[in-house]
Order: sequence, then C-alpha cells, then structure tokens
Amino acid sequence: MEKDKFNIVVFSGDLDKVLAAFILATTAASMGKDVSMFFTFWGLNVVRKKKLTSGRNILQWIMNFMNRGGADRLPLSKFNMLGMGPAMMKIMMKQSKIPSIKEMIKMAKGLGVKFVACTTTFAFMGFEKDDFIPEVDSFAGAATYLQNASEGKISYFI
Amino acid sequence: MEKDKFNIVVFSGDLDKVLAAFILATTAASMGKDVSMFFTFWGLNVVRKKKLTSGRNILQWIMNFMNRGGADRLPLSKFNMLGMGPAMMKIMMKQSKIPSIKEMIKMAKGLGVKFVACTTTFAFMGFEKDDFIPEVDSFAGAATYLQNASEGKISYFI
Amino acid sequence: MEKDKFNIVVFSGDLDKVLAAFILATTAASMGKDVSMFFTFWGLNVVRKKKLTSGRNILQWIMNFMNRGGADRLPLSKFNMLGMGPAMMKIMMKQSKIPSIKEMIKMAKGLGVKFVACTTTFAFMGFEKDDFIPEVDSFAGAATYLQNASEGKISYFI
Repeated sequence: MEKDKFNIVVFSGDLDKVLAAFILATTAASMGKDVSMFFTFWGLNVVRKKKLTSGRNILQWIMNFMNRGGADRLPLSKFNMLGMGPAMMKIMMKQSKIPSIKEMIKMAKGLGVKFVACTTTFAFMGFEKDDFIPEVDSFAGAATYLQNASEGKISYFI
Repeated sequence: MEKDKFNIVVFSGDLDKVLAAFILATTAASMGKDVSMFFTFWGLNVVRKKKLTSGRNILQWIMNFMNRGGADRLPLSKFNMLGMGPAMMKIMMKQSKIPSIKEMIKMAKGLGVKFVACTTTFAFMGFEKDDFIPEVDSFAGAATYLQNASEGKISYFI
Repeated sequence: MEKDKFNIVVFSGDLDKVLAAFILATTAASMGKDVSMFFTFWGLNVVRKKKLTSGRNILQWIMNFMNRGGADRLPLSKFNMLGMGPAMMKIMMKQSKIPSIKEMIKMAKGLGVKFVACTTTFAFMGFEKDDFIPEVDSFAGAATYLQNASEGKISYFI
C-alpha cells in the first residue's frame, strides 16, 4: 500500500514558524507518512549554508546581508528585539526539551523527510545549488511540488 | 453518513488572522462540517485565561508578559501602533456587525466547533491546563491533530 | 473528466506572499487545474483600484490610508524599510524575469484563474463593488468559497 503524502511549503524563515513546520513534518513522518518540505522564499534560509559561495549582484548582496541565513540565525515572527527574542526562545526550547532547528533537520532526515529547495525563487534570491546544505534532496519548481502535494490528503503553506 | 471534517491550525495570535480563522470555522460549522480549531504557539493566547495560575521560570514570565493573552487583547499582524490598530479594528468590527473574538468563541461553541490546545507547545510556552478557558474541549499533540486533519478534505495553517 | 480544483485564500497583502500565491496559482492553472484565488482582508488590496470611489467613515478612511492598495504598492512582509525593500524586490524580480504583480494578474487571467473578492470582509474594510478592478470575476462569502475549496484536493491560506 502506498504511504499517504504530506507536503509543507516552508515560505517563512521565522524561527517560530519554521519550528512549527518541523514539528508537523517530523510528527507526520513518525506516523508513517511520506513527508516533503518545500523550502521557498525566506524559507530557503533554513537549508542554506551560512557562507554563500555564489557571485551575485549588489541588490542581491544587500538582500542577503539583511536576510542572513543558516538554521541557527532565524528571527522570530514577533518580539525579535535585535535577536534577544530568538535567543530566549532557544533557551526555552532547550528547557522544554524541544530540539533546535539544527537538531530538527537531523531528526527530520533520520525519519526520511525529503527536503526540496524551490528553483523558482532561489534564482531570484541570488542563490545557487552550491549554497545549500547537503541535506537538501532535490531542487524543483512549483509544478513538480504541486503535483506531489496534490497526491496527499492535506498540505500546508507556512 | 459521516460529516466532512475541517481542521484549522491557529498558529497566529494576531487579531486579524484569528478573526479569519473564526470566520472560516463558524462558516464551515454552519455548513454542517465537523470543525476543529487546533490552537498552538501564539494562537494559545486566544484560549488562555488573562491571569495565569501556573508557576513558571523567568524567561517564560518575560515571554508571557510581552505576549499577553486573553481573546480581547490580541494584536494586529500589521499597523499595531501601540494598540491603536486593534482598537480601531474592534470599532470597525462592531460597525460592520462582525462579532468580536469573544463573541466568535461563543458562536463557534454554539455551532459545535471543537477547541483543541496543543500540548507540544503549551509546555514550552510555560502554560498548564489550568491556564485555559473552559471552552477548550481537549488537549492534544501534533500526532492526534494531524490524524484528524488528514480525515478531512482540506485544512489550513493560519 | 472534471478538472481538479485548486483554491488559495489570499489573506495577506504583502508583496512577497502575494507573489508566492500567484506563482502557485499560475503554475496550477498551467498544469490544467481549475484555480480560484479568494482575496480577503489585506489581500483585497491586490484587486482593488488605487482610487476608491465609495464613501466611508473616518476610521475606514484612516485604515485605508495606512493600508493603501493597488497591486503596485504592496509592502513586503519583512524588511519593508519605508518602501525600499519592495522597490529592491521589484528590481530583483525584473532581473530574474519574474513578472510583477500587475503582470501576474494578466498572466493569471490569461490562464483562466478566477478572482473572487470576499464579501464578508470587504464591507468591513469599507470597500464597495465599484472599488475593485474589472479582473475580479465574482464576489462571494466564506461559505461559497469553502464549498468550492472542499471540492479540490488541497488548498492554501496565504
């Protein structure tokens, strides 16, 4: 019997929303679902290396500077307060035994969650394939993603 | 015949998004669907008592102070302006005969909408079961929620 | 054979989220799906004329002034910086050959995407039918929308 598919579009790069996405993804995977996370727009920051290797133009450079990536530097969607909010949240996550995003990535991979980076937006954000962490399984556009998502029962945009 | 299930994850605690969630939930319920709202992260503020009874550590206390709850104190996702935005929106809601969140909660309960508070995140936010309003029907984790949501046709993350 | 339905609730009026909604909508339409975009709350700005014709009260006027509409004036969900962020993003969109929202609207209409403006919230925002661009196919409330969305496989709230 085929496994039920569960797809999440990770549009947001905010720590709290990304955490929610990983909780849903790892939970679904441990329930036996076939899970894919499709990282797009700000969500690409979650699966991108800290230091970018690709050349880019000045506008993309400014956007990338303001929008610094890497799974341990995500802002909060509220109460960011120059980084104090996320720091507090990380301590709280530790206290409540909730894994960090880096640990969530490992956990998700261990459970077979597939990571897909959106090619439609990564060109636009000035990223190249080399800019992403090796945990990314594939690069795909919106059409491939939507086809896969439609084969599941529900899907979320986060 | 079994009723169609409709599940909404209420992640946001912003007045406008919560209002949208309640409009969808009450509409679906009045169409005869079996509706559940799963309150998680900032959304827990919607179904939490104003005065918390539980003990908590200092970080959770700071987070809770900034993130004050109760259905009549939710901020807007934009134009918050030290509370003037939500105040204006509440007057506009009254003028347009759109019920307040408190009235929405009553309406939703009257229509049989089930309220579920997310146990995965409430521990993390420093809440306990006693911190929630009696309208909360049950406490459940992500697995129970996802199982239920997958039995419906569509589901939203708000 | 009936076409698969794909529905998106466009709640947000932020340039980046609206862009994501249009990418998903036009992609789904070009895959042969029957696509509807349901514009509600801030999303109504996308399909509204720049100059409103309707009379409105002072609160609605203030809300509308802060929340100025028209598809070429949408803010970003982050890094807005008094409009510099969206301006940069528009240049980047041009450089990457991603169409502007105005072009996206044309493209979507060309592919048969249906635009629905939410009557439940437009009264509340102080809009009237005359305030919307002619590309809007119909005006409907949440019940009509949910009925249609439930007939598809997946649906997003953006």
